[in-house]
Amino acid sequence: MYTLIIGNKNYSSWSMRPWIALRAAGIAFAEQKVGLFTEAFSERVAQVSPAGLVPVLLDGDFAVWDSLAICEYAAERHPEAALWPQDAKARARARSLAAQMHSGFGALRQAMPMNVEAHLPGIEFPEAARTDVARVQAIWQETRAQFGQGGPFLFGAFSIADAFFAPVVSRFTTYGIAAAGPVREYMDAVLALPAMQEWTRDALAEATFVEADEPYRKHR
Amino acid sequence: MYTLIIGNKNYSSWSMRPWIALRAAGIAFAEQKVGLFTEAFSERVAQVSPAGLVPVLLDGDFAVWDSLAICEYAAERHPEAALWPQDAKARARARSLAAQMHSGFGALRQAMPMNVEAHLPGIEFPEAARTDVARVQAIWQETRAQFGQGGPFLFGAFSIADAFFAPVVSRFTTYGIAAAGPVREYMDAVLALPAMQEWTRDALAEATFVEADEPYRKHR
Repeated sequence: MYTLIIGNKNYSSWSMRPWIALRAAGIAFAEQKVGLFTEAFSERVAQVSPAGLVPVLLDGDFAVWDSLAICEYAAERHPEAALWPQDAKARARARSLAAQMHSGFGALRQAMPMNVEAHLPGIEFPEAARTDVARVQAIWQETRAQFGQGGPFLFGAFSIADAFFAPVVSRFTTYGIAAAGPVREYMDAVLALPAMQEWTRDALAEATFVEADEPYRKHR
Repeated sequence: MYTLIIGNKNYSSWSMRPWIALRAAGIAFAEQKVGLFTEAFSERVAQVSPAGLVPVLLDGDFAVWDSLAICEYAAERHPEAALWPQDAKARARARSLAAQMHSGFGALRQAMPMNVEAHLPGIEFPEAARTDVARVQAIWQETRAQFGQGGPFLFGAFSIADAFFAPVVSRFTTYGIAAAGPVREYMDAVLALPAMQEWTRDALAEATFVEADEPYRKHR
């Protein structure tokens, strides 16, 4: 049995990725939520991972950490879930996108912290963040055009690449980023995922206000 | 036939990882070097990858970008090279470490840019960087103790995890970070890799001084 240790759901974009991947793939897991920036967090996470970060997947007492490594682990253990595209080139591209999201888009991440519950349109973002937004939208559009036959996701069927962009779809929704055509359609497909709707419901039910993730508000 | 597009060898830690992985595994590739922060770089990279970054692996005309995705691609296409550990748990842990290095240790990376040719001992690093150093050393030691039977690398035989830490070994050497016991032994094993020695020779033969990567020197 798996346990997925996550931070909160309103703000923790790293937690969201493997949670969405596992849930969308129908892989059963228990969820353990440890509040971000709390003592309970540091204590619990230190017990299972030297990285000291969420998410952590426990498979029995074996710990797999890092959002991408957890997804790779799930993909390997559950080939029937087809978490990566079946075609080798599509799979390579999906890994390029997930890895690029994993280490990059720093300006976007800093200027637009994930905040599922908030609605904050109209903020003037720095140019570097706007460049990142345009780049992400171009990636979605190009990938859909090249690999997206057979379904509404980047590679047709849902894959880990979509799980990695799910927090970005959430951010673009929070900050009211203009989206039309294929970009809008892709975002709508992600937002319509039952896993995404469940995560969103849970995030809305949370009451915690995390200052470090709230550059634009004083309270919820 | 593969072509690996990389930045320079003295400074480009992202380029180093897949280069070391492919070379150490005996996978043939042509190397194409495009100087970091040059116009030729932007032009060449834009032709092949919307990420606009090195490294990029070309397999014929198909582009795989991002250091980690390139390594996954090589591991999948060349199972005989055993680029990931064979045991499922060891493989999961190797992916955790590679992914953690891929997105983390920002303080270390910022304070200690890779600089193969330089010898810069005695610098006072910020506490966050020193914490990262201690964490990396602890990871090496714990991983060697748990998985390192049968060889001098983190998982015994060389794996992608070692390729991901190779630039850190280089940094610790440049900045004269104290290392003893298992940490020293591990660093020596990485430094003794023929692939590592070839990369180092090539880096020493370069003459370019990249200001953005030189917080501590005015010239070579």
